[in-house]
Amino acid sequence: MDDTVGQLGEREVLRRILARIGRSAAEVGPGDDAAVLAVPGERIVATTDTLVHGPDFRLAWSSGYDVGWKAAAVNLADIAAMGARPTALLVALTMPDDTPVAFVEALADGLREACAALAPGCAVEGGDLAASDTLTVAVTALGVLDQDPVLRSGARAGDVVALAGDAGVAARGLQLLFDRFRDADGAPVAVTDDAALTDAERTALARQLRPHPPIAHGPLAAAAGATAMMDVSDGLVLDATRLATASGVTVSIDTAPFAGEPLALTGGEDHALLATFPAESALPDGFRRIGEARMAGAHPVLVDREPPVGRGGWDPYADWDAARG
Amino acid sequence: MDDTVGQLGEREVLRRILARIGRSAAEVGPGDDAAVLAVPGERIVATTDTLVHGPDFRLAWSSGYDVGWKAAAVNLADIAAMGARPTALLVALTMPDDTPVAFVEALADGLREACAALAPGCAVEGGDLAASDTLTVAVTALGVLDQDPVLRSGARAGDVVALAGDAGVAARGLQLLFDRFRDADGAPVAVTDDAALTDAERTALARQLRPHPPIAHGPLAAAAGATAMMDVSDGLVLDATRLATASGVTVSIDTAPFAGEPLALTGGEDHALLATFPAESALPDGFRRIGEARMAGAHPVLVDREPPVGRGGWDPYADWDAARG
Repeated sequence: MDDTVGQLGEREVLRRILARIGRSAAEVGPGDDAAVLAVPGERIVATTDTLVHGPDFRLAWSSGYDVGWKAAAVNLADIAAMGARPTALLVALTMPDDTPVAFVEALADGLREACAALAPGCAVEGGDLAASDTLTVAVTALGVLDQDPVLRSGARAGDVVALAGDAGVAARGLQLLFDRFRDADGAPVAVTDDAALTDAERTALARQLRPHPPIAHGPLAAAAGATAMMDVSDGLVLDATRLATASGVTVSIDTAPFAGEPLALTGGEDHALLATFPAESALPDGFRRIGEARMAGAHPVLVDREPPVGRGGWDPYADWDAARG
Repeated sequence: MDDTVGQLGEREVLRRILARIGRSAAEVGPGDDAAVLAVPGERIVATTDTLVHGPDFRLAWSSGYDVGWKAAAVNLADIAAMGARPTALLVALTMPDDTPVAFVEALADGLREACAALAPGCAVEGGDLAASDTLTVAVTALGVLDQDPVLRSGARAGDVVALAGDAGVAARGLQLLFDRFRDADGAPVAVTDDAALTDAERTALARQLRPHPPIAHGPLAAAAGATAMMDVSDGLVLDATRLATASGVTVSIDTAPFAGEPLALTGGEDHALLATFPAESALPDGFRRIGEARMAGAHPVLVDREPPVGRGGWDPYADWDAARG
């Protein structure tokens, strides 16, 4: 039960992962030099996003299952944000040789179940194992399109700005971990069953550790005529700034829809879908209006008609300090 | 000139990388949530392989350019080994915040120039930057097929076994680094211009640091009717064992073609293409006969008609020890 990957060796670790990642849907799945995947429509959507132990997860807080789930979810969200349907993940796992095999097996379970829950039909179709002092999960997601991709750059003045999914819930979960589950030196401590948490706090924690981005809503938005779309990974104001800048508009956000969610404007990691639609469109199910796009003004984003305060999100090099934790 | 990625921040580091990785050939290249790529033929080949500082490269020995080149080359080889043409790379780069920006820029140069030299038309079409205590380059390569993929499992008794590319040259380069460019404590020291190296030694060093897998020969082999193919990344005997096992044959290797190359049988990292062809085929240019496939016997691989001695290659967890270096 306490076997490590160093004790078992690459071949046996790989065998155990392959037994858990679920059924391949590919023409050639894991096991050859590369996977071969069907791509109806003759174009593919591809993205990569990495979770690193330290900045992106802490082992005291996240189980192997959580890490696998989140690594899948954040990549699926980038595919959905193009209006595409995810079809395959490739997973490059680097880990110290004292990593317990049980952790790796749970990680494979999390990858499988996130695909099943968020993007049925998508599976892990390839990967790589490597030794490293730092546990890292680098995932590439591939997807297919039923219509043209929805870019960040297509928003036009007059469009409705809408959001599908949570805003600020995962960030509340992170704040809870930092505030209540660290020791006197600031080191993470495990969340135990007897921690006195409200239901709302439990939900926020779960969303931080296992986000539920609205993957199916990406293709729905594309079919409904979305003019621009992206996923909110670093914070609503920061990501809206990116969309506004790419589109050459100002995005005006109303805070009324976010009443009671203190971190809605700056919290990332929910991987909500931020999209714009022509003013006359009926919003697809699951999207709520949060503002409108205007002619580009002095500020790319306005919040309740005022320029936002602060950076509005997360920068991995400026904000992360290994010594600080 | 001594700027670090932590000083510059993600956005500026990304800007500098994008300025160097070359021209996108994609419908949507870097900068949106995901890339959009044309896939003629309605199927794609996809693979991922990671280089980790420590087991896979040492900064005293490898420049940023070398690391970028090698990260591209090893992934391009996996695409070629399916008989496919590489079309795009996605690069997930994780690095400490004290990494010099000049190193990252050189790495981007290496990625670009490896694509240009080994797989013209292929470019970096997406990526991810993350902070980590361990410098890691996780690359995903995508490719397209002009005919059916060539798997490891298609070799038949009677087939000719052939190889394109070097065998053992990169391993000689690694041995040279370990033998002559470490200090008394075993730590790597830089290769200086005044190191007394023969031309053969310089070539071996260059091939270890910047391998030249025969990428164009993958599609050539497929077109010539190769029955099975894979790239030799861990050692000829070990990888031939994998091909033989997948195909249900015994691969009988003759050492005569490798006279004068002491590490040809066990050295990896040249990323030569090992392929089998029907006995009556003319081998495509660049492939040389190294043996034949036989009915499966007691051993998956024979070397000069005898079972091989030793493991025949590299296991990342069993063979790498951070303390040993």
